[in-house]
Amino acid sequence: MSTTQTNKFEIIKASTSKINEVDFENLSFGSVFTDHLLECDYTNGQWQKPVIKPYAPFLLDPSVRVFHYGQAIFEGMKAYKDDDEALWLFRPDENYKRFNNSAVRMAMPEVPEEVFIEGLNQLLQLDEAWVKKGKGNTLYIRPFMIATGTGVIASPSNDYKFMIILSPAKSYYSGEVKVLIAEHYSRAANGGIGAAKAAGNYGAQFYPTSLANKEGFQQVIWTDDATHTKLEEAGTMNVFFRINDTLLTAPVSERILDGITRKSLIDIAEKEGIDVQIRPVLVSELVEASKNGTLKEIFGAGTAAVVNPIVGFSYQDVYYELPKTEDSMALRLKDMLTNIQHKLAEDTFGWTVKV
Amino acid sequence: MSTTQTNKFEIIKASTSKINEVDFENLSFGSVFTDHLLECDYTNGQWQKPVIKPYAPFLLDPSVRVFHYGQAIFEGMKAYKDDDEALWLFRPDENYKRFNNSAVRMAMPEVPEEVFIEGLNQLLQLDEAWVKKGKGNTLYIRPFMIATGTGVIASPSNDYKFMIILSPAKSYYSGEVKVLIAEHYSRAANGGIGAAKAAGNYGAQFYPTSLANKEGFQQVIWTDDATHTKLEEAGTMNVFFRINDTLLTAPVSERILDGITRKSLIDIAEKEGIDVQIRPVLVSELVEASKNGTLKEIFGAGTAAVVNPIVGFSYQDVYYELPKTEDSMALRLKDMLTNIQHKLAEDTFGWTVKV
Repeated sequence: MSTTQTNKFEIIKASTSKINEVDFENLSFGSVFTDHLLECDYTNGQWQKPVIKPYAPFLLDPSVRVFHYGQAIFEGMKAYKDDDEALWLFRPDENYKRFNNSAVRMAMPEVPEEVFIEGLNQLLQLDEAWVKKGKGNTLYIRPFMIATGTGVIASPSNDYKFMIILSPAKSYYSGEVKVLIAEHYSRAANGGIGAAKAAGNYGAQFYPTSLANKEGFQQVIWTDDATHTKLEEAGTMNVFFRINDTLLTAPVSERILDGITRKSLIDIAEKEGIDVQIRPVLVSELVEASKNGTLKEIFGAGTAAVVNPIVGFSYQDVYYELPKTEDSMALRLKDMLTNIQHKLAEDTFGWTVKV
Repeated sequence: MSTTQTNKFEIIKASTSKINEVDFENLSFGSVFTDHLLECDYTNGQWQKPVIKPYAPFLLDPSVRVFHYGQAIFEGMKAYKDDDEALWLFRPDENYKRFNNSAVRMAMPEVPEEVFIEGLNQLLQLDEAWVKKGKGNTLYIRPFMIATGTGVIASPSNDYKFMIILSPAKSYYSGEVKVLIAEHYSRAANGGIGAAKAAGNYGAQFYPTSLANKEGFQQVIWTDDATHTKLEEAGTMNVFFRINDTLLTAPVSERILDGITRKSLIDIAEKEGIDVQIRPVLVSELVEASKNGTLKEIFGAGTAAVVNPIVGFSYQDVYYELPKTEDSMALRLKDMLTNIQHKLAEDTFGWTVKV
């Protein structure tokens, strides 16, 4: 291992690379990590010098607050290589902003831009061989922060660890997705943490999702917890509905994540002249539209899958199958977005940022 | 270190004890831990042999799911020493049951009784010198479980770690407690995880609590998230209200933890002939009772503090101060409960269990 000190970073290079052990054609999402990670500790009220070093386990005391009180947040983003082997990020400023919004909501310190953005750039340059060119190949980026202060008393930690880990990914195909509309369980409270990418929001979904899985549904469409009448998210993604040629999605709120894929798709759709309505979408509307044949598509939107088409939904024990579409709006928008991300189409929005 | 193997446990004793370094008269709650901990790993679909070993940090991969998806639960319980130096637990079966209920809700495996209960007994016997006799001295017990499976994909972990750590404690005095009734933020959703002792429930409270702290309130009284009209919990405790000589508390629900201190106090109060009403308690009732002088007391109830008297509350920017009481029901019930716990009064309920 060789160590380099700059003003801003300490860089400890791995003595050997694991890259040749990886089968890039058969990657299971989120399970293989690159040679290096970025680590930055918050102690004594300030962020310490960030270190880029070999990916490895680290020691934690049994009483650290991430275990006991769930102070933990993350982001999901991707890097792409164009045909000239140049490396690109997609709207990293949006992830950075949202990460710090999540930090505030979870009473954690905000991470400085030079740690998050410059640190990510440094790390990507070191592990750039892990990003393969060609549409469908990406590098999934997982910045996260955990509370590392010790002591089993329910108050905010004094110490935190920020990390970025990188995982090469193929395009995410989850098979045919049928969803169950939630009538009892829910993912977020009014005045809760649903809009934050807080770890606790995800684990809370696993049990209701496993119940849906047992009934043959791959995901749950979450509804508002008070009335279960409004459609809010699909699994861990935002959700869109196409009724005739109108695209509908719920407005972001305290209960709904401000998804970057979501807002990018809205912008692309509007530019394409599609009628996009951002308003609460009712379960009753969806059932009605399915019955009268105007419901054409439902799809999830998120960083991992980009767009995840749904083939049917169940509500109150009735299954509603969606029609097969020749002109899928979901796939058209996905194609336009991924072309921008992979630099195969002009980025008129200014979303792509060179590493 | 010496290692003992039994059929059920592997016991690795610390070569030296830290006990002489500890000032038992000046303990900060939850910050000092005993010499040993219990650890049991869940891998390949089953619980492995539990190990009791010296308290020490342990290694985790940066991608473990407790960091990213918040699969983490815990319990809080106490051990007590009577005047004959015998060691007692208080309703450990209730903590054990609730722990496994939390596990189910968080899609985690249930822990076998011989790991949780027998393991705890073994561990307590080893570290029994850390429990001091005398009312006010206790050993706080923190069983917890975290997801240790790797991979940044939002699905339940395959691997888990169960641990029990022990922390000597003095009686918990939090000073004069003024509370703010939540009008915007909330701790739990309908159909959410509020009834589980899931780590994520606690971290989610820190920010709203810090806002209350800035206004001079030590805690928040949480209301139902849909209407903010029902009084549900106080900080991390259940909450009781005394109007005239009637004791009121909300029924447990999906949003409200089934507190063991709560239900023990209810049983003691009923045995004492106190009129206890378990029903939704409205904010409007509380304000009205304060105005007409019938509101006598408010107190939180939980394992750490046992009973936490509240001196006043704020709602819609009006502060309501509680009268000073000569005959505090809170302190009387607390005294009766702690006397049972410390074996200073007869345990007619059969709650205390000898280690």
